[in-house]
Amino acid sequence: MNIYLDWNATTPPLTDVLNAMRDAATRAWGNPSSIHAHGRAARAIVEDARGAVGALCGASARDVFFTSGGTEANNLAIRSAFRSSASRGQWLVTSRLEHPSVTRVAEALETEGAAVVRWVHVRSDGTLDLEDFARTLDESKGRVALVTAQAVNHETGVVQPLDEIGKLARSYGARIHVDAVQAWGKIDPSALPWDTVSLAAHKFRGPKGIGALVARPGFGLRPVLLGGTQEKGLRPGTVDSALAAGLGVAARHARTSPARWSEIATLRDTFESALLTMLAHDPARAPYVVGDPARRAPHVSTLVWPGWIGVELVAALDLEGVSVSSGAACSAGTVEPSPVLLAMLGSGDAVRGVRASFGDETTMDDVDRAVEAFRRVVTR
Amino acid sequence: MNIYLDWNATTPPLTDVLNAMRDAATRAWGNPSSIHAHGRAARAIVEDARGAVGALCGASARDVFFTSGGTEANNLAIRSAFRSSASRGQWLVTSRLEHPSVTRVAEALETEGAAVVRWVHVRSDGTLDLEDFARTLDESKGRVALVTAQAVNHETGVVQPLDEIGKLARSYGARIHVDAVQAWGKIDPSALPWDTVSLAAHKFRGPKGIGALVARPGFGLRPVLLGGTQEKGLRPGTVDSALAAGLGVAARHARTSPARWSEIATLRDTFESALLTMLAHDPARAPYVVGDPARRAPHVSTLVWPGWIGVELVAALDLEGVSVSSGAACSAGTVEPSPVLLAMLGSGDAVRGVRASFGDETTMDDVDRAVEAFRRVVTR
Repeated sequence: MNIYLDWNATTPPLTDVLNAMRDAATRAWGNPSSIHAHGRAARAIVEDARGAVGALCGASARDVFFTSGGTEANNLAIRSAFRSSASRGQWLVTSRLEHPSVTRVAEALETEGAAVVRWVHVRSDGTLDLEDFARTLDESKGRVALVTAQAVNHETGVVQPLDEIGKLARSYGARIHVDAVQAWGKIDPSALPWDTVSLAAHKFRGPKGIGALVARPGFGLRPVLLGGTQEKGLRPGTVDSALAAGLGVAARHARTSPARWSEIATLRDTFESALLTMLAHDPARAPYVVGDPARRAPHVSTLVWPGWIGVELVAALDLEGVSVSSGAACSAGTVEPSPVLLAMLGSGDAVRGVRASFGDETTMDDVDRAVEAFRRVVTR
Repeated sequence: MNIYLDWNATTPPLTDVLNAMRDAATRAWGNPSSIHAHGRAARAIVEDARGAVGALCGASARDVFFTSGGTEANNLAIRSAFRSSASRGQWLVTSRLEHPSVTRVAEALETEGAAVVRWVHVRSDGTLDLEDFARTLDESKGRVALVTAQAVNHETGVVQPLDEIGKLARSYGARIHVDAVQAWGKIDPSALPWDTVSLAAHKFRGPKGIGALVARPGFGLRPVLLGGTQEKGLRPGTVDSALAAGLGVAARHARTSPARWSEIATLRDTFESALLTMLAHDPARAPYVVGDPARRAPHVSTLVWPGWIGVELVAALDLEGVSVSSGAACSAGTVEPSPVLLAMLGSGDAVRGVRASFGDETTMDDVDRAVEAFRRVVTR
């Protein structure tokens, strides 16, 4: 199999995660909503996982709502803020750095007349323009129902200035949803200034198919999907004890694993340095780094390759045994420009980005072999 | 552990399902949207499962859309029918027999002004009143955008007269969503008159956390959740190859397993006969069967116990080592009357139902021991 440098797309589940899931599915497969012994056994596992997720972000278990993943958690948080009659026509402040599960909800709320969306200017270094953000809040005259901002960008790995975003938002009385899907396990979510925060288990060695939204008490969540009374009626549908067990193990692992990240940064930097010098003889085709290097999470390297369409370089690298990505994984397969790179760089280079993302099983040997694969392809 | 007679709430995953999931999660855990080798390996499993689900209901793989479960599939189908400007104010025809993931969406559409909901009268035998249904269609003067009806009722096991419902609906040009969540593996879904049909893997020995909506080409699905381009943009969020693999195995098992159902009917009938005679000396407390016995699926027995609140009888039986249910599992824990029994029986007996549901691992020994547990409790 290929060398895997696409840890932002998904991560291999930990063996401990798979074992916990198998155990739950074998001995506690009941419906957690059932009041009998089979239900209680499943419920105990679900509630243990709820506690683990809460602990990871400094929240109480009762503020954790399981969803099918990060997309649903983002939808739930943002739509909730625009469901009351008082919120109608209020502002949603966000930017084009966000994941489609945020930007498409924003666009829909605008179309539906439920929100006025203000798109804050994005700097070419991949951060939110704080001056424009402050100006937007000032112009809003208290009409901001929600600010939504990522903790770590999915395409560039840039860590957003959430402290400043949080302080500004709070000074105008605005609430904040933080999409922390790419941050969990990399930076401490309990330090983020969130009123709601989203996660997806599979981004930090847990299973796909489960995520969570954590909401401060009184946020006023309102369900997107309607049905039974699970998750206090805010997310109907049977909760799976196996998926919850996997998420619980991954959450505990994420809490204890940050030590590895300085090593990962070394791997990433070694990789990136090698790539940056690769076409030094041909400056017109030499790649450049996307996103402020001083602000990036340790595991992401996105380069723009002027001679390439990103998706074609990804395909060529795949043939050489390396799995990397162009644009968000969930938009892969299309040649649409990356909305994030478009916002940062304009249209010329927005189709030319290739992302490598590293994880806790990446080795220096992987890096060496990946560099050689890049060399074979780009110097061909 | 208790004797498990709550197979309508959830079923134990097949060992083959768990093995297929472990295999997928171990060797094909990539993101199915990724274009590289890791993505392709996961995608192959997802697409194989899509084919298996399509085959089970006589549809093409391309008409199968994976969701997080039955609730989401029902939400997606019903909301889709009321998303266009042409559908605004059109009628949704349904009944109080439906699952909350249908009835609550109907209520919301009415509140939102997106649909006019007509609740068809429910007969005391647990079937839709076909005369009232025909009258409703007639009064609609072509304004019915969607009829939504269950195949098998979750609380009574009553098989709805879907042939007649389908013929009537079609004669008025109305489309039909069939909630087949409780039917899959019990009756042949390819014979149902659906334009969209929903399923949840965990109701037929697959994993919790995945379901599907199957839609005839041209139905015009519109996403409820917004985000990436997965499932043709109709259901964003990373698809899990492991959950898909489990669903695929369960779907193939469901196709080949109906032979067992006549044996299960024998178990159910033996159980029910024993319970019905248990309080023969005290007619005022003797239970009675809910739902037309001639129309029930083979695996469900719901009785009303005049001397009991259902949830209390369930709790007492749990202490005696039997897991059964009162009302839909997803409303368990509340003492709200069952909406289904309320529609069938009125308020007096709607809190007095207890459902036993049987599965392909239920044995005559289970039945004997469960009967004795009931006897100990109800003759105390």
